[in-house]
Amino acid sequence: MTRPYDIAAFRALIGPIKCEDNPVLVKQKSRDFYWYSPVLKRQLEPVTADLVVTPQDERQVATILAAAHELAIPVTARGGGTGNYGQAMPLDGGVLLNLIEMNRILAIAPGRVVCEPGALLADIDKAAAASGQELRMFPSTRATASIGGFIAGGSGGVGSITWGGLRDFGNVLRLRVMTMEASPRTLELTGADLHKAVHAYGTNGIITEVEMPLTAAYDWVDVIVGFDSFDAAAAYGLALGEQDGILKKLVTVIAAPAPARYFLRHRSIIPEGKSVVLAMVAPHALDAFEAFTRPVKGAELLFVSSRAPRETLAGLPPNYELAWNHTTLRALRVDPKITYLQVRYPEDGGLAMIRRIHERFGDEAVGHLEIIRFNGRIGFAGLPLVRFTTEERLQALIDEHEAMGAMVFNPHRYTLEEGGMKQTDATQLAFKRDTDPQGLLNPGKMIAWADPDFDYASGQNFLFPGLEARALAAQS
Amino acid sequence: MTRPYDIAAFRALIGPIKCEDNPVLVKQKSRDFYWYSPVLKRQLEPVTADLVVTPQDERQVATILAAAHELAIPVTARGGGTGNYGQAMPLDGGVLLNLIEMNRILAIAPGRVVCEPGALLADIDKAAAASGQELRMFPSTRATASIGGFIAGGSGGVGSITWGGLRDFGNVLRLRVMTMEASPRTLELTGADLHKAVHAYGTNGIITEVEMPLTAAYDWVDVIVGFDSFDAAAAYGLALGEQDGILKKLVTVIAAPAPARYFLRHRSIIPEGKSVVLAMVAPHALDAFEAFTRPVKGAELLFVSSRAPRETLAGLPPNYELAWNHTTLRALRVDPKITYLQVRYPEDGGLAMIRRIHERFGDEAVGHLEIIRFNGRIGFAGLPLVRFTTEERLQALIDEHEAMGAMVFNPHRYTLEEGGMKQTDATQLAFKRDTDPQGLLNPGKMIAWADPDFDYASGQNFLFPGLEARALAAQS
Repeated sequence: MTRPYDIAAFRALIGPIKCEDNPVLVKQKSRDFYWYSPVLKRQLEPVTADLVVTPQDERQVATILAAAHELAIPVTARGGGTGNYGQAMPLDGGVLLNLIEMNRILAIAPGRVVCEPGALLADIDKAAAASGQELRMFPSTRATASIGGFIAGGSGGVGSITWGGLRDFGNVLRLRVMTMEASPRTLELTGADLHKAVHAYGTNGIITEVEMPLTAAYDWVDVIVGFDSFDAAAAYGLALGEQDGILKKLVTVIAAPAPARYFLRHRSIIPEGKSVVLAMVAPHALDAFEAFTRPVKGAELLFVSSRAPRETLAGLPPNYELAWNHTTLRALRVDPKITYLQVRYPEDGGLAMIRRIHERFGDEAVGHLEIIRFNGRIGFAGLPLVRFTTEERLQALIDEHEAMGAMVFNPHRYTLEEGGMKQTDATQLAFKRDTDPQGLLNPGKMIAWADPDFDYASGQNFLFPGLEARALAAQS
Repeated sequence: MTRPYDIAAFRALIGPIKCEDNPVLVKQKSRDFYWYSPVLKRQLEPVTADLVVTPQDERQVATILAAAHELAIPVTARGGGTGNYGQAMPLDGGVLLNLIEMNRILAIAPGRVVCEPGALLADIDKAAAASGQELRMFPSTRATASIGGFIAGGSGGVGSITWGGLRDFGNVLRLRVMTMEASPRTLELTGADLHKAVHAYGTNGIITEVEMPLTAAYDWVDVIVGFDSFDAAAAYGLALGEQDGILKKLVTVIAAPAPARYFLRHRSIIPEGKSVVLAMVAPHALDAFEAFTRPVKGAELLFVSSRAPRETLAGLPPNYELAWNHTTLRALRVDPKITYLQVRYPEDGGLAMIRRIHERFGDEAVGHLEIIRFNGRIGFAGLPLVRFTTEERLQALIDEHEAMGAMVFNPHRYTLEEGGMKQTDATQLAFKRDTDPQGLLNPGKMIAWADPDFDYASGQNFLFPGLEARALAAQS
């Protein structure tokens, strides 16, 4: 059922808080990069909020939540809108809570930054630079992504090779979260309580302040190493990752033909047919990096940013904007048929499994690996570039990956569970009962709330009734 | 043969360079902490130089080396004298090159420090603190050890849980090394060339300048967690080590009864019968550390330095002075019969092997583990506290460790090879041919030079003829 929300009453209740109801602009702000997935592109196309509300401070957030609660209007929080699974898309319409103007950086101390959720990752790093510090990790969308959105909708990224993922203890220090009630409360989450709200898509509270760890900042050097085979590149990428003394922020492995074909501005740097390893290396680790790389058979050092002429650098995106899901983005720009998967390979035998999978699927799933730290160990995450044909074939590809022993975090699903561990997160569900008893925050994203009896083993996808009703309404 | 060196001629050649020939003081400076090993204590007792020379700069080092070369007098370099295997003990007498007064810190930049070899680790950290930086790693003898001595004679230590060992690429950036020739040359070693001189005991060049990587400095918090069994402590220590987001500088596991028995100043903190995990945790990681620790079965948080009353802290050594070989030192002070081994356990199944070894030897080898990063993975190094009876039994203990699958780096040997990989290091040997063609630098430490045909599989220990001759002379 598409609910007729009383938006006029809501606006009256929130008074002078900044609003936008121009349908074109509202629809624009109701979107993220869900269109990387042809499945989500089809499913989420009709999604739009009724109103975008842009609070300037926590008090305004409280006013908005209280008003929406009174009128039973759904509220979906959004930061930079850089998600890839519709994390911030309001499946059931209602209010889009645009937090991007709550972007103040409140405090910086050794190892810590406190800020509002709308602060951009790039701006936090700029502010932290004065003390020689920077964030431990950021997504490839660093320039436009907000810290709150990263915490609520992300998992890790550039920096995960050193620090692991966002959900690891210590990678988020504190969250201040507001509840969706008649009189919204603010809760301070630290320690194990952080798991309640990290990567919950804003379904169980609105993040109004964050405290994140900082680490030493460096003028990272972008390097690109070429190989004649994906295999050799993957083995080198892992070995480079395992060099404990060579400080890196990124090690990415991308199979030919993707680099030469999709990294258009790097065409003079990356020859056709080369698989590449992209890395971000600390300046004081560059010498060790080269000493490590030089004797590696077949390794060809194609690019070192600190030695590149200024004219060359001017036209180039940084390495991190070739990595993680920016690899997919660049592929998509050249070939709109490209989509991707998210894969984890096992610690033991990962390299051999990657080789088998690569041989099996060839150009249908071009290898893309991110070297990350996971439970104290260096390993592979994968975001293979998939040539999309049909949804059935995409599912078959996923099934075959899993049959071969890899774990797929399906990026073609808009729910927390189906994109994640495919099971109820009891902690997040219990927290939602406490913070959002009426189920008004980002409806449709937490299956455990919407359909507690949903059977993950059934092979069926979860379809949020609200979204289905909207899709039908849009067609009629 | 004990060689009669022409010390008078040497002094004439070096002119006003600072010297000491008082036999008591010379003998004092010819020593390190070799006496942790009853074997080395017996073997190295008679070792002494003829003269201690204390240069103030590189030019004086060149003068000293040229003079010693002309007169064929051995030269053994020494820093703080905190080695444990006689690294800086002059087996064949001659000149003790005391570098401790060449201790200037020349430059500090983001990620780097340049200094002379005699700079104390603690003093480098003090100087780096102004820029919010510190060394990646230091031995437990930080207060008195020099950076040159650490590089020439050490392997890693506090900080290796994050950065691996000194010999890993990137953990030493540059060494300036002077050759032992008629006209000493200075060589700049970087990249793979660093392996020529790192951990070579000064046998193939005198380090006159070093460049080391720096990392972010924190006011590390000392924590102590108690357990009722060594097993539980070891499993927790490993798991804590594997927490990628919890920034630590040290995780040490010590089996009961050692902590209560040997850490005298911690008696009010560590109850009898407790095995402990000692850690150094970054202040901004303390909350995550506690959240991680709280649910661990049997874990009891005994101490957190940042919450301890000032009176308590005043009497306590820092955690790192309970760890690594300071564990052995504290045990020795209480029970002079204690010595130790240096063990590496395999990555896979290390915990089970440690359990088997601990069960087998009981109180004869009390468990002491250091959690370190090795090839991209968190694992165990061991420095078990051994109750010494005879040299034969000590060797049997080593053999049994190896038979059970552990790797022993024998700390009861004064040679590079026998304390290490038990094979010729071709790189270091070739470098010695270039830098010290007459074999005058720290004689007797590199078997590959002294006896190229030595058979490591023979079961015989290498005995340096010069040392044997001195021992006989001393007895007669």
